[in-house]
Amino acid sequence: MRDVAVIGVGMQKWGELWEKSLRDIFTESALLAIDDAGVDHIDSMYVGCMTSGLFVGQEHLGSVLADYLGVAPIPALRVETACASGGAAFRQAYFDVASGAHDIVLAGGVEKMTDVDGGGATYALSTAADAEYEVYHGVTFPGLYAMLAVAHMHKYGTTRDQLSHVAVKNHRNGAKNPLAQYPFEVTLEQVKNSVMVADPLTILDCSPITDGAAAAILCPLDMAKKLSRKQPVKVLSSAHATDSIALHSRQDLSWLSAVEKAGQVAYKNAGLTPKDIGFVEVHDCFTIAEICVIEALGFFEKGKGGRGAESGETAIGGRIPVNPSGGLKSKGHPVGATGVAQIIETVKQLRGDCGERQVKGAKVGMTQNMGGTGGSCVVHILGSV
Amino acid sequence: MRDVAVIGVGMQKWGELWEKSLRDIFTESALLAIDDAGVDHIDSMYVGCMTSGLFVGQEHLGSVLADYLGVAPIPALRVETACASGGAAFRQAYFDVASGAHDIVLAGGVEKMTDVDGGGATYALSTAADAEYEVYHGVTFPGLYAMLAVAHMHKYGTTRDQLSHVAVKNHRNGAKNPLAQYPFEVTLEQVKNSVMVADPLTILDCSPITDGAAAAILCPLDMAKKLSRKQPVKVLSSAHATDSIALHSRQDLSWLSAVEKAGQVAYKNAGLTPKDIGFVEVHDCFTIAEICVIEALGFFEKGKGGRGAESGETAIGGRIPVNPSGGLKSKGHPVGATGVAQIIETVKQLRGDCGERQVKGAKVGMTQNMGGTGGSCVVHILGSV
Repeated sequence: MRDVAVIGVGMQKWGELWEKSLRDIFTESALLAIDDAGVDHIDSMYVGCMTSGLFVGQEHLGSVLADYLGVAPIPALRVETACASGGAAFRQAYFDVASGAHDIVLAGGVEKMTDVDGGGATYALSTAADAEYEVYHGVTFPGLYAMLAVAHMHKYGTTRDQLSHVAVKNHRNGAKNPLAQYPFEVTLEQVKNSVMVADPLTILDCSPITDGAAAAILCPLDMAKKLSRKQPVKVLSSAHATDSIALHSRQDLSWLSAVEKAGQVAYKNAGLTPKDIGFVEVHDCFTIAEICVIEALGFFEKGKGGRGAESGETAIGGRIPVNPSGGLKSKGHPVGATGVAQIIETVKQLRGDCGERQVKGAKVGMTQNMGGTGGSCVVHILGSV
Repeated sequence: MRDVAVIGVGMQKWGELWEKSLRDIFTESALLAIDDAGVDHIDSMYVGCMTSGLFVGQEHLGSVLADYLGVAPIPALRVETACASGGAAFRQAYFDVASGAHDIVLAGGVEKMTDVDGGGATYALSTAADAEYEVYHGVTFPGLYAMLAVAHMHKYGTTRDQLSHVAVKNHRNGAKNPLAQYPFEVTLEQVKNSVMVADPLTILDCSPITDGAAAAILCPLDMAKKLSRKQPVKVLSSAHATDSIALHSRQDLSWLSAVEKAGQVAYKNAGLTPKDIGFVEVHDCFTIAEICVIEALGFFEKGKGGRGAESGETAIGGRIPVNPSGGLKSKGHPVGATGVAQIIETVKQLRGDCGERQVKGAKVGMTQNMGGTGGSCVVHILGSV
């Protein structure tokens, strides 16, 4: 397989984008990525999107978006693995370049979530859970993650304040990200005392409903050095793992085995260990998710992830900065776009372009994007060249 | 890139499978494919499905189906490009093996279409058309293909009887396919006089609503010769092209440019021409589609596709047999599975396993799977080893 680099990234401010349609927001981000890369064409593209059929009544997204971007008749494919769809699109683009099939490939992600009412969005998202065994009985994602939180608190003594510290830390980072949906700080008291969604998770433990897109341009590393005006970033490894999407089928509610597996494969393929990672963008769809993920990726011992944000170890400047972008919590979570946005933050950090939220001196960054309650997980490790 | 072979295929009878869920029908076909290949594990899998979110309220299919098949935590991804999703799943599996990322990869497709009422199915399928410009105004797929038919009849003099001949020929083939949903013959008069759906298309010009799945196992060619008990079939080329999914954006309603483009790329990459193809499985979602496709693939001159079935040239035993399986028309059209089922028929034909519908002496077969009214097209060429 050929070595692969990221040479361009593009993303606009996320939020409730009432005046734009799905195809508009994707095209704007894709054009920014193409411009950032400085290329005059692309050979192939992949789009991560979870459920545009339910959100906006439009499937067949690869072709729609290639047409609006003006790149048809190139191959253009939508991929889906729930909220990890963006990471999966990046992974397929990586394979496309690595295999030698195509040279300049766009990996994008998009979700337009606000064109349905609140119940519609909750239902659309619930299709990432087990329709026959979980959703049928009425549980939705805040409820599922609340069960993970209760299990983790019961087994390891994780506290309500530790959950809050995750939200506080991510909003502190996101306040320095001009593209974030909610770029403001919150306090421990605000998180704990905000409206209850599913005990113990309050509304400030939850990532928001967001419209947004993100795009990146990949090419062979040896071509990147000639093509790109900016410093390319190398893809050091790509991993994808699966697990039962239904919580009742798992041995341990407090452990995300697909995250552990994807992390192991990613470390092995890159020849690295957790100690070599300078910062990580993780899938904090709920505060408890970040706690479980940083354990499964080996940054904290099992059961001790709650100490991460509380102790300051996961802050920018800490031992292992987690979600310098603000994470899903503050930056927003247009589900299909999130995985690509994690790549964008990692590329910008490795380029040293992150201003006030810059992680100093990092040469290697990791992204961790997951679907549902961890039924799928996509991990990438990227490094400076 | 490594040479890739298909070493196993699996499919059960398609139809209205009320007693089975999506995960059941996929798993049954996948197990048949694994058994046919004689392998004891798979390393990665891809699933083509158009819109399980709208049909059965379940996204996150890669993980659900990997779990039910008992192969988690391997990477498992759903891909979507409307009715060409199955072909796209096979293509991604091909890249996965060709790149060297994985050795034994499953490409599957599935759609469970009967768990919604008739209006629900028509709406779900309409998401393959342009939601903002076509569907919003009330047009559905029979109407869109009726426009293609009218344009073709007006420009080239294609006749009502020529449309009927496509249905008659495909049902004649499908009557010899024990896995077909509608394995019976129809007459010219029955097609012409059946209930009108969208003038000039009658119900017997339309492919049906179907529950079904299909699966194939791919591996490196050099491994295939050691692994497989059966004669492997080599993937000679893979191509994917896109076009505007909205008819009003096209220069010529009677010409499918994404089909032409995908065909050109597939021929070029295989070093072949239409004359080298022994038979072809095409996407006859409506009778007019087969007529347009066999022109765009170069088997008939522009405007003369209507003569194919009428003259007998596309019959088994004719110059270029088209849809020996019975096609979507007789075999059924569970949209996400169709592209993989075309691969299965091609593999079985090249193995000489097709009994009464066997195309004699063919060494090379082609598959053509498309999304919407040709907004996406995936073409593969397979050959005997």
